[in-house]
Amino acid sequence: MACTINVNLPESSYEIQIAPSTLDKLGEYMSKLELGRKVLIVSNPTVFELYGARVVNSLEANNYQVFTCILPDGESYKNLDSIKEIYDACIEHRLERSSTLVALGGGVIGDMTGFAAATYLRGINFIQAPTTLLAMVDSSIGGKTGVNHPKGKNLIGAFYQPKFVLIDPEVLQTLPEREFRAGMAEVIKYGVIWDAEFFAQMEASTHLDSIKTISPELLETIIKLSCQAKADVVGQDEREAGLRAILNYGHTIGHAVESLTGYTEVIHGEAVGIGMVAAGEMAAELGMWTKAETERQNHLIAKAGLLTHLPKINIDEIITAIQIDKKVRDGKVRFILPTQIGKVEITNEVPTDTIRSVLNNLQRM
Amino acid sequence: MACTINVNLPESSYEIQIAPSTLDKLGEYMSKLELGRKVLIVSNPTVFELYGARVVNSLEANNYQVFTCILPDGESYKNLDSIKEIYDACIEHRLERSSTLVALGGGVIGDMTGFAAATYLRGINFIQAPTTLLAMVDSSIGGKTGVNHPKGKNLIGAFYQPKFVLIDPEVLQTLPEREFRAGMAEVIKYGVIWDAEFFAQMEASTHLDSIKTISPELLETIIKLSCQAKADVVGQDEREAGLRAILNYGHTIGHAVESLTGYTEVIHGEAVGIGMVAAGEMAAELGMWTKAETERQNHLIAKAGLLTHLPKINIDEIITAIQIDKKVRDGKVRFILPTQIGKVEITNEVPTDTIRSVLNNLQRM
Repeated sequence: MACTINVNLPESSYEIQIAPSTLDKLGEYMSKLELGRKVLIVSNPTVFELYGARVVNSLEANNYQVFTCILPDGESYKNLDSIKEIYDACIEHRLERSSTLVALGGGVIGDMTGFAAATYLRGINFIQAPTTLLAMVDSSIGGKTGVNHPKGKNLIGAFYQPKFVLIDPEVLQTLPEREFRAGMAEVIKYGVIWDAEFFAQMEASTHLDSIKTISPELLETIIKLSCQAKADVVGQDEREAGLRAILNYGHTIGHAVESLTGYTEVIHGEAVGIGMVAAGEMAAELGMWTKAETERQNHLIAKAGLLTHLPKINIDEIITAIQIDKKVRDGKVRFILPTQIGKVEITNEVPTDTIRSVLNNLQRM
Repeated sequence: MACTINVNLPESSYEIQIAPSTLDKLGEYMSKLELGRKVLIVSNPTVFELYGARVVNSLEANNYQVFTCILPDGESYKNLDSIKEIYDACIEHRLERSSTLVALGGGVIGDMTGFAAATYLRGINFIQAPTTLLAMVDSSIGGKTGVNHPKGKNLIGAFYQPKFVLIDPEVLQTLPEREFRAGMAEVIKYGVIWDAEFFAQMEASTHLDSIKTISPELLETIIKLSCQAKADVVGQDEREAGLRAILNYGHTIGHAVESLTGYTEVIHGEAVGIGMVAAGEMAAELGMWTKAETERQNHLIAKAGLLTHLPKINIDEIITAIQIDKKVRDGKVRFILPTQIGKVEITNEVPTDTIRSVLNNLQRM
C-alpha cells in the first residue's frame, strides 16, 4: 500500500513516497521533477551491491546519465574527506547546477550527500533513497545535512532540503538487526515527544526488536507515523528557531555517548535510546513527569532491544562534551525533557548536579 | 558623509553602511543586531596588523568576547584547509549558534568566513568588514560564499547572507595599487551591465587607476553606485535563478584566466577586466553591440590601469576550463554579452569558433 506524505516548507516543499518495491521506480518518480540529465548516486559498498543495479537501471531506463560514488561504510567516515570525494566525482563527471545527487544508503550517506549537494556549485538537487530504518524515519527528512568534526558530531553542516524522498520498506529485510533496533529508538522518540497514541500502539505490540517479528502492518504504521511526525514538526519550524528542537530529545546525552565511544561501540540510535532514558530520569528527578511514565518509556526502549543503561564512560567527559554541542546557548546546555507521554518541554535549567547523579545511576544499573 | 544601502531579500535583509572612519564603530553597529556575546574575527596578517586593534577595541568596548583566526593571505589559500582552520577556532572557543564571525579583509577572507559561518553548526551569524575595493563593491554583498577546488574557482560554496556590511573607504589608503585597480574592474562592470550614467561619470574622470588621483567624491560615488547596483540585482534574484547571472559579466573567461595562471599571476579583478574585453569583442563579433561601444569599454578598462589583452595561456585549456565552470548548463557555456553600455543579455549560443578567434586576437594584441 502506497502512501505519500508532504513536507510543507516556505521555499522547498517535497513529497515522501512510502511504498514497498518502489526502488525500481526512482527514475519514473524523478522524471516528474524536471531535473537535469546527470545523476550521481552516492552509496556504500554493502548497500550498492544489494540495490545499486535496481536504481541504476531505473534511472537509465528514464534517460538519465548515471555516475556513482561509493564511500566506505560507517559513521567514522562521515567527515570532510568523504565530502571531498563526492566533490571530486561531481567535478570529474562535470555535474551542473541542474544535476542531481541521489543518496542511496543510511543516515551517514544521506547526511553527507545532502551536504555535498548543498555546497557543490552553491547547491544542486538531491534525492534521498534511505535504506535503514533510522534514515527512513528521521535523517532523510527535514534537510539537516553535514559531517562530524573530530571534536563533535554534526558540527559542520547546512540546512538543505531534498527534492524527493523515496522509502521502500522492503529493503529493511536486508538490514542488520542491530541497525533496525537502533532505528527503533528514533521511532519511540516520536511517541514520547509528539504522539501518545502511536506510543500506545507500540506498547500493544508483543515484539518490537526485530524486522522478523514485527507485522508488516505495524512496520508500515511505524514508518508512516514517524515520517508524519517529523514532517509536522519541520513544517512548523524548518531552521530550528524553536519547536524543531524537540526532535533532539535524547540527543544531548546521546551525541556525547556515541562520540566518546568512537561512533562504533554505541551507534547513533542506541545512543539516542540511552539519551532518552537519561532525559526521562532527569525529568522524573525534577518532578516534570511521573516515575510511572519514566518506566513506561524505559520499558518500551528495552522491548526494542535497546540499552537502557550507560556504558563505561567517564562522566566528566560526558559533561564536557555536552558543553560543545550545537544545543548550547550562552554556555547553558539545553535539554528536551518530557512532561507526559506525547509532550516535551525545552529547558536549559537542568542543574549539573542532577545531570551527574542521573548519569551515575544509569551507569550503576 | 555616511550612506546606508539596504539589501532587500525575502528572508534576510540587511544594511550596508558606507562611511569613512567607521571601522571603530563596528561594535556599536553590532549592538543593534542582538547577536550573542562571542565574536571570532577572521582576517589575514597584513590587514589584521593594520586594522585589527581598532576592530577588537570597538568590539570589546561593546562587551563582546573577541577571538581571532588569522589565515595566510592570498587566493591560493582559499580552500577547504583554511575553512578547517576556521572550524577549529570556532570549536576551540566554543562558538554557539548565536555567535558571530566577522570577516575583516578582502574577498578571499570574506568568501571563506561566509562559508564557514554558513556551515558551522549549520549556520551562525556573520558580518562583512571589507578592506579592499573589490570586496567593498562586490564580494561582501549578496551572500555568495565559498572556496576554490584545484579544478576550478568557487566550485564549493553556499548562498549565505551577512547580517551587516560595514564599508570604511578610508582603509583603501593602505591598499596596494594593484589591488585597487583590480577592484575597478568590478566597478566598471556595473557601468556596462546596469548603469550607463555611472559609466559616463567614470569616462569623465581624468584618472581612474589610483586611489591617490581619484577625488574622494568620485571614490564615494564609485562605492555607493556599485553597492546600489549589486543590491538592486541581488534583491531581485538572490539565488541566481535568472537576472543575477548578469553579475558574472566578464567572469566566464575571467575565472579560466585566473585559474590557469594559478590565481597569482593574474588576480581576480584583472582577470575579470580581460574577461569583459573578451565578452565585448564576442558581442561585437556577433553583431550584438557596436564596435564603438567595445572601444569605449576597452578604453575605460585601460584607463583603470588594467590589462586588455590575454596573457600567454594555451587557448584550448581556456576552452576546457570554461566547460567545468558553474555557468555551464546542459553542456553549453553561458556568456553574458553587452547589447549597449548599461545593458547585457545572457546567451549560451556563442559558437566555440567565435570564442576561439576572439581569444586568439586578444593574445596577439
